[in-house]
Amino acid sequence: MSLEDRNRVEVCFSPRQFELYKSDFQICVVIDVLRATSAISTGIDHGIKEVIPVSTIEEAREYHQKGYIVAAERNGEVVEGFDFGNSPYAFMDPALKGKSVVLTTTNGTKAIHMAAEIPTVVIGSLSNLDVICRWLLDQRKDVLLLGSGWKEKFNLEDTICAGAIADQLIESRLFKANEDSTIAAKFIYRSAKENMFSFLRASSHRRRLRRLNLNDDVKYCLTPNTVNSIPILRNGVLEKLAYDYEAIH
Amino acid sequence: MSLEDRNRVEVCFSPRQFELYKSDFQICVVIDVLRATSAISTGIDHGIKEVIPVSTIEEAREYHQKGYIVAAERNGEVVEGFDFGNSPYAFMDPALKGKSVVLTTTNGTKAIHMAAEIPTVVIGSLSNLDVICRWLLDQRKDVLLLGSGWKEKFNLEDTICAGAIADQLIESRLFKANEDSTIAAKFIYRSAKENMFSFLRASSHRRRLRRLNLNDDVKYCLTPNTVNSIPILRNGVLEKLAYDYEAIH
Repeated sequence: MSLEDRNRVEVCFSPRQFELYKSDFQICVVIDVLRATSAISTGIDHGIKEVIPVSTIEEAREYHQKGYIVAAERNGEVVEGFDFGNSPYAFMDPALKGKSVVLTTTNGTKAIHMAAEIPTVVIGSLSNLDVICRWLLDQRKDVLLLGSGWKEKFNLEDTICAGAIADQLIESRLFKANEDSTIAAKFIYRSAKENMFSFLRASSHRRRLRRLNLNDDVKYCLTPNTVNSIPILRNGVLEKLAYDYEAIH
Repeated sequence: MSLEDRNRVEVCFSPRQFELYKSDFQICVVIDVLRATSAISTGIDHGIKEVIPVSTIEEAREYHQKGYIVAAERNGEVVEGFDFGNSPYAFMDPALKGKSVVLTTTNGTKAIHMAAEIPTVVIGSLSNLDVICRWLLDQRKDVLLLGSGWKEKFNLEDTICAGAIADQLIESRLFKANEDSTIAAKFIYRSAKENMFSFLRASSHRRRLRRLNLNDDVKYCLTPNTVNSIPILRNGVLEKLAYDYEAIH
């Protein structure tokens, strides 16, 4: 396909730059590999009915008082008084099947709310990497990949995941990229992909989680394609997108 | 040297993130490879007495009316009515020896003004790469490398230059880095260094300059160590830092 006819895919490193990158995209993929979007993708795949992302601890507390199951994480730890944090293993609990789960996290849920001004918002992670790429290739729309970052700063793991998605889309020749951030993300992904775990040894957030004894979570979140679901934002709630690749192709 | 005793070197991709990164650094190196800081380093090395960075075309015009030599660039082109833009070749003109030059550019001069709240501000580029690294190694202070970006967005060439400086400082074992942005910049530099020109073929700003027939400028700006001077900001004016590596070592 000629360059002019291709759709655009671009990478925005963190919510801090969203204003600069957001215009004219029809789809936004929000990425918070460690650990919010990995946990959401996993939970939705394991049968959670819906995840309600909220920005503040106060909102989360209100839901809790109304009897909701509420997950709350700040700085890598479960916030006191809540049911669990954003460990993907907690989101696999069979007791959550068919239930609504309210979630607030340090970075990810804020990025989801920010992204909501783009018509379609879906949740991306390494956990659902291939299914999200397949779905994006079927949509033929312009796609912004938004990393959640760490407290508005660039982070390596979200950039690698965004680079992995951008790489698949660009290689299909149905998409093109213009921004330097996209070129850099694709490049970092290609160099990291053979051994993601050792590449990220030095990353600041991984060091943070190691101190909290969360190495199992990190290993899970860095393993591609453990689930096959795409959470989509509808009326402020994340639910499972009906998408059957085999049926379409 | 043990990690605790090392100084910090970190990379901030663009002025948009400066607020997040700026605290506690004693030195800021401002980088705008294409082309402001390459031109300033070159001009100071070729005998320009001082470069006065101003943010707006209006300020530049006021200086012009007072009889100053004024260079003004916006979006890669010389602004109408001014003496020249930010081509490093214009800054080599022997007629400028001993003179003051006022300069305003799309990205670089704004980053210089922003950096001014850090005690010491110097100008970095690939043109003066090794001399600035040597000088930083002699200072033993915490260093922030600030890319000027393109209209507040991340750009590849400033990141590569910042990565080159960070790499030399970290390899000396006198410096350490904590931020993911620094790890990424160092990594991108290492992968790009064998063939900077082809690596940057895809960069958005280089494409922009190619359309303007500025390939000679780009080649010059991507060639490391063409000059041996460090411009330093003193009272709002950039002048040559007195630094004689041979005399000290």
